[in-house]
Amino acid sequence: MRVVSARDFQSKRENDYGTPEQNETVKSIVNSVRAEGDIALLRYTEQLDRVKLEASGLRVTEAEMQAAYERVEPSFVTAIRAAADRIRAYHDKQKRQSWMDFQADGSILGQIIRPLRRVGVYVPGGKAAYPSSVLMNVIPAQVAGVPEIVMVTPPASGGEMGINPYILVAAAEAGVTEMYRVGGAQAIAALAYGTETIQPVDKICGPGNIYVALAKREVYGAVNIDSLAGPSEIAVLAEEGADPSYIAADLLSQAEHDEMASAILVTPSLSLAEAVSAEVERQLELLPRRDIARTSMDSYGAAVVTDSLTDAIDIINRLAPEHLEIVTKEPMAIVGQIENAGAIFLGPYSSEPVGDYFAGPNHIIPTNGTARFASPVDVDDFIKKSSLIYYSKEALLRDGETIMELARREGLEGHARAIGIRLDQERNTGGTTK
Amino acid sequence: MRVVSARDFQSKRENDYGTPEQNETVKSIVNSVRAEGDIALLRYTEQLDRVKLEASGLRVTEAEMQAAYERVEPSFVTAIRAAADRIRAYHDKQKRQSWMDFQADGSILGQIIRPLRRVGVYVPGGKAAYPSSVLMNVIPAQVAGVPEIVMVTPPASGGEMGINPYILVAAAEAGVTEMYRVGGAQAIAALAYGTETIQPVDKICGPGNIYVALAKREVYGAVNIDSLAGPSEIAVLAEEGADPSYIAADLLSQAEHDEMASAILVTPSLSLAEAVSAEVERQLELLPRRDIARTSMDSYGAAVVTDSLTDAIDIINRLAPEHLEIVTKEPMAIVGQIENAGAIFLGPYSSEPVGDYFAGPNHIIPTNGTARFASPVDVDDFIKKSSLIYYSKEALLRDGETIMELARREGLEGHARAIGIRLDQERNTGGTTK
Repeated sequence: MRVVSARDFQSKRENDYGTPEQNETVKSIVNSVRAEGDIALLRYTEQLDRVKLEASGLRVTEAEMQAAYERVEPSFVTAIRAAADRIRAYHDKQKRQSWMDFQADGSILGQIIRPLRRVGVYVPGGKAAYPSSVLMNVIPAQVAGVPEIVMVTPPASGGEMGINPYILVAAAEAGVTEMYRVGGAQAIAALAYGTETIQPVDKICGPGNIYVALAKREVYGAVNIDSLAGPSEIAVLAEEGADPSYIAADLLSQAEHDEMASAILVTPSLSLAEAVSAEVERQLELLPRRDIARTSMDSYGAAVVTDSLTDAIDIINRLAPEHLEIVTKEPMAIVGQIENAGAIFLGPYSSEPVGDYFAGPNHIIPTNGTARFASPVDVDDFIKKSSLIYYSKEALLRDGETIMELARREGLEGHARAIGIRLDQERNTGGTTK
Repeated sequence: MRVVSARDFQSKRENDYGTPEQNETVKSIVNSVRAEGDIALLRYTEQLDRVKLEASGLRVTEAEMQAAYERVEPSFVTAIRAAADRIRAYHDKQKRQSWMDFQADGSILGQIIRPLRRVGVYVPGGKAAYPSSVLMNVIPAQVAGVPEIVMVTPPASGGEMGINPYILVAAAEAGVTEMYRVGGAQAIAALAYGTETIQPVDKICGPGNIYVALAKREVYGAVNIDSLAGPSEIAVLAEEGADPSYIAADLLSQAEHDEMASAILVTPSLSLAEAVSAEVERQLELLPRRDIARTSMDSYGAAVVTDSLTDAIDIINRLAPEHLEIVTKEPMAIVGQIENAGAIFLGPYSSEPVGDYFAGPNHIIPTNGTARFASPVDVDDFIKKSSLIYYSKEALLRDGETIMELARREGLEGHARAIGIRLDQERNTGGTTK
């Protein structure tokens, strides 16, 4: 891992919006599914996933869900349940209530908070199938009160129709209410527009490959979508006295995700930077995924040495990292100065994987500097709000002229007259209640 | 206004994503501003707005802001202040607190809520310049605690450099902290990427023409943006006994907005539908904007007659209207059945313009059916959240093995080792605090 001075350090990656050919492919798939429904779904599943299904085979049955429990270790079921419980407990605290404000003039103003009715969760197939991500997408929706949570995931190739049993168990534990074996852009189109078998949803979330990401952009507007997640990132803000082996292990836990991942130490201590760098080299050699981790450390890893802790904090705020670990003598004293970071881990025992799997907060967190303006996935992502206005006659008689003045300044006489017709009539009838 | 049965009623409009030529123009403007900064801004302002400025003239001065107060009627200042106070009071109730949850094992989990640092608000020039929209975009940001709120608006053509004084006064009252006379796609690019004169922002909001809308889509990712607003909509759910003249006036107040606006009555009463339809014809002739209102009523207006109130509620939920008025005997009894509506107005005195200007809730509300999954603009649109995890040693020793199990099931050995290295070391040192 390179050790660099703050002056020489720069980090910037671009979002991937696909090639023109990929965009064309996705548009064509989405349009076909929208026009043809199930037939197109089955055709693309055969063509792209090499699995031949009938429409009746799209839905994963209750029996299959149950059978999956027999195919995983009991220790996994115990672990995923414990994780689900903790994630649910954290997200429960994010729940919000509708409110009403009763005014002295008899008016009522309010805000109604309701869950979305139906949400679709995409779960990738193959090696990128992570049971923990199923929990992190589904549980916030379930806590929000979404009654219908639909999961889609591509069937394994080779004609098996199979879905990873760990994914099925995680889905059942998290609270998925329907599941379909279909993936790719065709699954996104089905969730957005509906087919004979799959009813359309209000929002689609979950990670996927470039075709899935482009399809989500394509259907946005017909339904809501979550944000596009970029490669994983960790920044560690540490001082002299921190354990270099812990920091190195945490940096590598992000670097092993993929070759685009970024793992950065920021510290005023040159000796800590050098010690961590050496530890990274040592631990890297022992990792099963060392080739991936090596590439990402070489491309995006760095130990950045600053003149002061204040300068280190500035760099963190400019990076706006997805994950930030603060390993200083008094980490809580620094949190208030961190303006931009998706998830903040404090002290030597809050290793980032604690948050990936178990602590409770969501592990789907803004990447690529977007923590400046975006937030981790939470219950708010699965609700909608309506404003409520009950204006009393007294309030309208009091405020009517002011409202008409504002409407007329904007040249909207029709707006003014909607008020005026009431003022005229209520005044003419002597203000009797009507 | 046509009276139709529920069976024959359909409503669907498409979003406008611009022509390929418009998209190319916008991309080229955005790229030029990004590459050249102020020089490109000034060139486009001369070319498109026909106003020749120097870089030093981009910023609207404090003196100009003050001078605007002399150019508007005192009654307008009084009215806009009253409206701003009410809007601020409503949005104040949406403010949320950061929270921490102290666990028995010494761990702390939390959610930190912070305002965005810098927000850009686009305000259109010309006839579409609405002081009320300035309040509705700026006040939620100000209530959220955003310290820097930057307004951009195109200078009037004809070489005057002028900005509508009503807009300037509304901006000052709402709490804008900086203002620049620049509009169009070039203004959006400046807010997203910054120039020598204009520092970049974290989020851009506010309405604009198709070029502004496309530019916002183009820069999304570098900054956050608000949702694209479609044409205005109102649905009125009413029963026999409602005053047809009030309903007609409210329908027309939306129809006068633009030719794409939609105004729909849904009622189980044929006689009410006919009476409202006749009133619409009568009032329409008297409106200054009757040509616009006529076109929108002919294209998108309808009085839909249903078999029952329940059927009427179903239609409302399918429409998911931006504005919904409920004018029935007991409107509060119906609110609970309304699943999809951006803003809900109850009873005969809650005329929709009350909400446009004065009541307090935001008037920027999801259109075109997106109230199914989206919400009115509010304080939440100007904050970001960070998760906080402080795991105690006790908690890590208790949960570590479970976390390692989950990591290994996903093939992420590096994640497991970040935990394992701590478990090994803490157990070897006999569990002393470290």
